[in-house]
Amino acid sequence: MAVNEAITALETLLGERCVRSKSDLDLHGRSESHFPLAPPDAVAYPETTQEVAQIVQICAQHRVPVIGWGTGTSLEGQAQAFLGGVCVDFSRMNAVVAINTEDMDVQVQPGLTREALNNELRATGLFFPVDPGANASLGGMASTRASGTTAVRYGTMRDNVMGLEVVTSDGRIIRTGTRARKSSSGYDLTGLFVGAEGTLGLITELTLRLHGQPEAISAAVCAFDDVGGAVSAVMDTIQMGLPMARIELMDVASVRAVNSYSNMALPEKPHLLLEFHGSDSGVAECSEVFGEIAQGHGGSGFDWATRAEDRNALWTMRHNAYYAILAARPGARAVVTDICVPISKLAQAVEETADDLAANGVQGPILGHVGDGNFHAILLIDADNATEVKAAEAASARMVERALALGGTATGEHGIGIGKLGYMIAEHGQAWNMMGAIKSALDPQNIMNPGKLVPPRN
Amino acid sequence: MAVNEAITALETLLGERCVRSKSDLDLHGRSESHFPLAPPDAVAYPETTQEVAQIVQICAQHRVPVIGWGTGTSLEGQAQAFLGGVCVDFSRMNAVVAINTEDMDVQVQPGLTREALNNELRATGLFFPVDPGANASLGGMASTRASGTTAVRYGTMRDNVMGLEVVTSDGRIIRTGTRARKSSSGYDLTGLFVGAEGTLGLITELTLRLHGQPEAISAAVCAFDDVGGAVSAVMDTIQMGLPMARIELMDVASVRAVNSYSNMALPEKPHLLLEFHGSDSGVAECSEVFGEIAQGHGGSGFDWATRAEDRNALWTMRHNAYYAILAARPGARAVVTDICVPISKLAQAVEETADDLAANGVQGPILGHVGDGNFHAILLIDADNATEVKAAEAASARMVERALALGGTATGEHGIGIGKLGYMIAEHGQAWNMMGAIKSALDPQNIMNPGKLVPPRN
Ligand SMILES: Cc1cc2nc3c(=O)[nH]c(=O)nc-3n(C[C@H](O)[C@H](O)[C@H](O)COP(=O)(O)OP(=O)(O)OC[C@H]3O[C@@H](n4cnc5c(N)ncnc54)[C@H](O)[C@@H]3O)c2cc1C
Ligand SMILES: Cc1cc2nc3c(=O)[nH]c(=O)nc-3n(C[C@H](O)[C@H](O)[C@H](O)COP(=O)(O)OP(=O)(O)OC[C@H]3O[C@@H](n4cnc5c(N)ncnc54)[C@H](O)[C@@H]3O)c2cc1C
Repeated sequence: MAVNEAITALETLLGERCVRSKSDLDLHGRSESHFPLAPPDAVAYPETTQEVAQIVQICAQHRVPVIGWGTGTSLEGQAQAFLGGVCVDFSRMNAVVAINTEDMDVQVQPGLTREALNNELRATGLFFPVDPGANASLGGMASTRASGTTAVRYGTMRDNVMGLEVVTSDGRIIRTGTRARKSSSGYDLTGLFVGAEGTLGLITELTLRLHGQPEAISAAVCAFDDVGGAVSAVMDTIQMGLPMARIELMDVASVRAVNSYSNMALPEKPHLLLEFHGSDSGVAECSEVFGEIAQGHGGSGFDWATRAEDRNALWTMRHNAYYAILAARPGARAVVTDICVPISKLAQAVEETADDLAANGVQGPILGHVGDGNFHAILLIDADNATEVKAAEAASARMVERALALGGTATGEHGIGIGKLGYMIAEHGQAWNMMGAIKSALDPQNIMNPGKLVPPRN
Repeated sequence: MAVNEAITALETLLGERCVRSKSDLDLHGRSESHFPLAPPDAVAYPETTQEVAQIVQICAQHRVPVIGWGTGTSLEGQAQAFLGGVCVDFSRMNAVVAINTEDMDVQVQPGLTREALNNELRATGLFFPVDPGANASLGGMASTRASGTTAVRYGTMRDNVMGLEVVTSDGRIIRTGTRARKSSSGYDLTGLFVGAEGTLGLITELTLRLHGQPEAISAAVCAFDDVGGAVSAVMDTIQMGLPMARIELMDVASVRAVNSYSNMALPEKPHLLLEFHGSDSGVAECSEVFGEIAQGHGGSGFDWATRAEDRNALWTMRHNAYYAILAARPGARAVVTDICVPISKLAQAVEETADDLAANGVQGPILGHVGDGNFHAILLIDADNATEVKAAEAASARMVERALALGGTATGEHGIGIGKLGYMIAEHGQAWNMMGAIKSALDPQNIMNPGKLVPPRN
């Protein structure tokens, strides 16, 4: 079989860094979300761009699927090998290549995680802001166009990737972008690979934009009587142009879950979690203005965390919310929703979603990056109970319909993989076929992460 | 001939809005830069997206080139009809479709100019920041990925276009993006059309991000003894993270030109032109900090303009600088250069450029958006003097080599057209072929603005 020939060639190339043990295959066939196990035929651990190019050349020769793997935290089955093939695990390509403090940019290998990068940057006064909660790899984050709690201030991966080195589907090595802050030089290939989920090529190096560590940081939690009040406060804040660094919503069910999982004692009410970055006086001014806005919408019980330990505890709690919610129903798996709407429609979208879930008996705590208009309902299911799975999937579909009707998108940050494929026509119409045409042009053999994101090839 | 058949069909469709008068053809065959006249065979003035689709269908049927036209201010021959064909002039599609103040976005037709948009927005408290000096169309600005004086604060068209309606090469109408602030839903087609110079389709509607009009604005000019001092001040400012809204450089030759053209009396020294946006106190604080930085690099003669009239006079002078420089040598045309480098290399790039021009006897005042690392030398030539033209082109090529060697780009904001085609391999290598593959996939007949941006089709 083609795949066996490819693996033989890979073993020659990589020796022990081409692995076929069941445990390793299973590890690379799993998803954090509800998709079934789908292991690759082999896992390759390259150490250089040149090796990545050779791996892809071998797979291209044998028409074997190639699936990139960062840390495997993506939530739509993006990194799973539903059609088998070779998983390229970037964990050994995790170096910081160059830090350019004067230009506030950094070149990194794709397997580096965002936490490891920020550890390296600590002494420079700079940091990389994109924060998807999970300690994901920068190559994976670029590939899903990740964002997270800080996008409201610093943007998403789209805004923070300046350039890439990519191995294309025929095993060539190309570079996109430059270290200049802007360019009008041809098609924005960097932007095309960001969010492409490894379907157009493998990222082997990234140039990332850095930001100055703020002089002052202050974080807070604030309770509201209802989700509507919390969301209205967010809308006012955004419309006033108050420079929030983070502004997160947790509904009552999410609060209950984190209280129990992270040993907190937040009042059982909807909460906003906030953070301000700036000068001492700027942060103080913003906090005051936000306090007034919140009060106007029934906000209460402000709790400011100015010490770094308290802030860390707060955001660790938030980052663990997904696991806290899963733990609220032992044995459950999650259908993770991820809609994003224009900010003026946020209250409507959240409230209609909550009502819909309640009316349909779907357990789905809501939380999200509401400063961007982006929120998740984590729909808890017993994966073996077909009725539950169906009810959750139907609720998820209604959320997407609602988001699209309000001018929004099916996925604010998690991407398509196979989980959101079914919504692509509704969101993009003919433009989805254009994505397919690009895919066919750049990967004519359909070996790069096949079955994901684009229309199925005939 | 195919083109005549196409025009007959267009006349049936558009009546008097399909024009073949010599004056109109010549008007649409001209460039603001040094490229020779290259008129289209006809100019079409559509009024609806539907008409644009029909125009493209007709041209596709007869394999006739289709070239979009906004206001024709692009500087690399992008809008000229070097291979003939039909120019689609968007001046009658210039409506504001919807202003969404709550979401701070706006939907517009492509022929609307940025000044007209900002007039419409005046009462809303919002504005559209991208400012290429020329009163360009928003469709043209998106197509060249334009930026200008305010990109250092508000980003380029890449950052401010949220979604598009596009007529593709086969005359279908697609939509890209949504009104949500972010999305991970598939390939970033919006980003692909931004900067594509009409080679992949015609933009018939844009959704643009708006920004709040600042509470306070203050602008200033400041003289320096040498360009090195001015540029060092810029570098320090950027590296400190001081939130400049504009920071522009003019060298001595540029200052002389604007003094005479705009009747100013600036000291004959290199100057920085600056603007701060923010709260009253924020602007005051920034101005003070900048003052200290500038003094440290020999800055002097600060002149603050807080009244709107004085600021307008200042920026009108800056926006007319191109014409002022042209007027400095009557009858001359310009080879406009547009390199952009990482900020740490800016002083080196500017100084080496100035030395090179002096050494080679090329007259080329330097000015630019130095906060982004982007600057222009406007190389003045007698277009009939082959020696001069050659010397200017060689100097331009050396500037690009210099920029690429420093990690920069051949064009920060003007784009490729035909003028920068010769640098694409040096900047992009194999990635330029990838652009060609995308073009072939999306425009297999090569009718959308052929001959521009991508590698010549075999
Ligand atoms: C608890 C939890 C919270 C989360 N919160 C957020 C959040 O707030 N915001 C958010 O955006 N996401 C969030 N996610 C989702 C996930 O963290 C992101 O999708 C992340 O970007 C995935 O990174 P990864 O390194 O794990 O990529 P993987 O899952 O390994 O891969 C993701 C995709 O990228 C491809 N890929 C990986 N590396 C490369 C490469 N070098 N070249 C080409 N393709 C490659 C893979 O093939 C796959 O298609 C969360 C996930 C969890 C489990
Ligand atoms: C004095 C002066 C100063 C300038 N300063 C700057 C500056 O600071 N920054 C900057 O970025 N640029 C600057 N420019 C260049 C120019 O203004 C920009 O390139 C601008 O974006 C061009 O817009 P336009 O409407 O004139 O487009 P056009 O010149 O009409 O067209 C530009 C390109 O876009 C295509 N096009 C036009 N409309 C559409 C559409 N609806 N759909 C698809 N394709 C279309 C055309 O075919 C062409 O390829 C300057 C020019 C001048 C003359």
